[in-house]
Amino acid sequence: MKVGFVQNNPLFGSITNNLARMASVLAEQSADLFVLPELFTTGYQFLDREEACRLAEPIPDGLTTQTLVSLARNINTTIVAGIAEREGDAVYNSALMVGPKGYLGKYQKAHLFDSEKKIFAPGTTPLEVFDTGIARVGIMICFDWRFPETARTLALKGADIIAHPANLVLEHCPEAMITRCLENRVFIVTADRVGIEERIEGQPLKFIGQSQVVTPDGDILYRASVDQEEFKVLEIDLHQARDKRINSLNHLFEDRREDLYRIE
Amino acid sequence: MKVGFVQNNPLFGSITNNLARMASVLAEQSADLFVLPELFTTGYQFLDREEACRLAEPIPDGLTTQTLVSLARNINTTIVAGIAEREGDAVYNSALMVGPKGYLGKYQKAHLFDSEKKIFAPGTTPLEVFDTGIARVGIMICFDWRFPETARTLALKGADIIAHPANLVLEHCPEAMITRCLENRVFIVTADRVGIEERIEGQPLKFIGQSQVVTPDGDILYRASVDQEEFKVLEIDLHQARDKRINSLNHLFEDRREDLYRIE
Repeated sequence: MKVGFVQNNPLFGSITNNLARMASVLAEQSADLFVLPELFTTGYQFLDREEACRLAEPIPDGLTTQTLVSLARNINTTIVAGIAEREGDAVYNSALMVGPKGYLGKYQKAHLFDSEKKIFAPGTTPLEVFDTGIARVGIMICFDWRFPETARTLALKGADIIAHPANLVLEHCPEAMITRCLENRVFIVTADRVGIEERIEGQPLKFIGQSQVVTPDGDILYRASVDQEEFKVLEIDLHQARDKRINSLNHLFEDRREDLYRIE
Repeated sequence: MKVGFVQNNPLFGSITNNLARMASVLAEQSADLFVLPELFTTGYQFLDREEACRLAEPIPDGLTTQTLVSLARNINTTIVAGIAEREGDAVYNSALMVGPKGYLGKYQKAHLFDSEKKIFAPGTTPLEVFDTGIARVGIMICFDWRFPETARTLALKGADIIAHPANLVLEHCPEAMITRCLENRVFIVTADRVGIEERIEGQPLKFIGQSQVVTPDGDILYRASVDQEEFKVLEIDLHQARDKRINSLNHLFEDRREDLYRIE
């Protein structure tokens, strides 16, 4: 199957503009799964919770989800994309999934990074694996990478691929995702952004790009630049992820020693 | 405190020789904790279980443990070292810990790699943290790295430092240990070996060296060569490992979402 990502540099707050640019890029491409960055329509550095609330959208009824539903139908693909979500009075840092047949589901970021805690509510959705008809796809968002249980839980629930929308500022993540792939034998598609935001004076945020597709053997199929908008589509073989053996005697899941992992 | 490792190239089966060489290296050094490689007295590639059984020693009553007990007392240090252990009828791939006051404990490798499964029994000891009086030290052995739960369990049980005797053949481990440090905010001292063993014709094993000390911030304080015997002693600050905050709002353990990690 073919998987792709878009690495963008959104203009803060210009939802319709950022969405239209993304849609025009995707409309020209062909893949079975596209992953877009975290908060791809709004940008990242909200001044406060009220601003995020104003720019957030309901899922699936908001403009972004509905636009992506149409797009996914038109180009016959599945899309995972990060947006600010408004649900009742709460704002979440969420990712939605849509496919050729419509809306598939959402995930609300469980591990909020730094000042995101002042803006967003921690996620209430489970770590869930969605069946696109072609692949079983789990979702994690950006800083979720730092907690090994996130990818582990998705892998144990059957994910072949982890879609990983991100707005990375911590340098270690791209390399750490190799470990996440090796320990779980999954593919991970990280869709990051580039550019700098300094909406809060003295607090510039530089996003590190390096969107990538990593295989269950820890090979980087492609890693994007640190500062350019890019898209990439790559062929992957899901059998690699579905076979958890790493040699004739080791099976990554069957070898787990759950009897030893419990903390008293 | 000071931590050190020795990277060796043992002569297969020459326990007294390998042990004497190691003791002579350590006798000249000064550190609060030394980590020695996996199976450092015997070498790695046993022909069969019987051979391993013949070369294995009881812990703590065997020659190696008793020699290291004396050495640790003489140079006032704690030593973690990997050896083949005979316990009743079983042979384990184990690591022992001794300090200035004597024997402290042992760990039997939980996740056996490849043909080790034909030689050793899987470990029956818990993932345990030992208090040396200076630091809380957990032990994992070589391939245990591939399972995130190993380091996670030791860290959640309070390890400041994970002593990691190894005989590495998989190229990804040295980089993966950076992820293990970052996700747990622990120090990891990996003591690996170098050299090639081909006791089974057509099955040469090349050990990759690169013993290293990595900090809770993912910095490699020192990484040894891929092919030379080496020892190294480094100063570390345990406070780094005892503070699980990575910024004013994120605490690596308090931010864990155990409610989401359970597999139904």
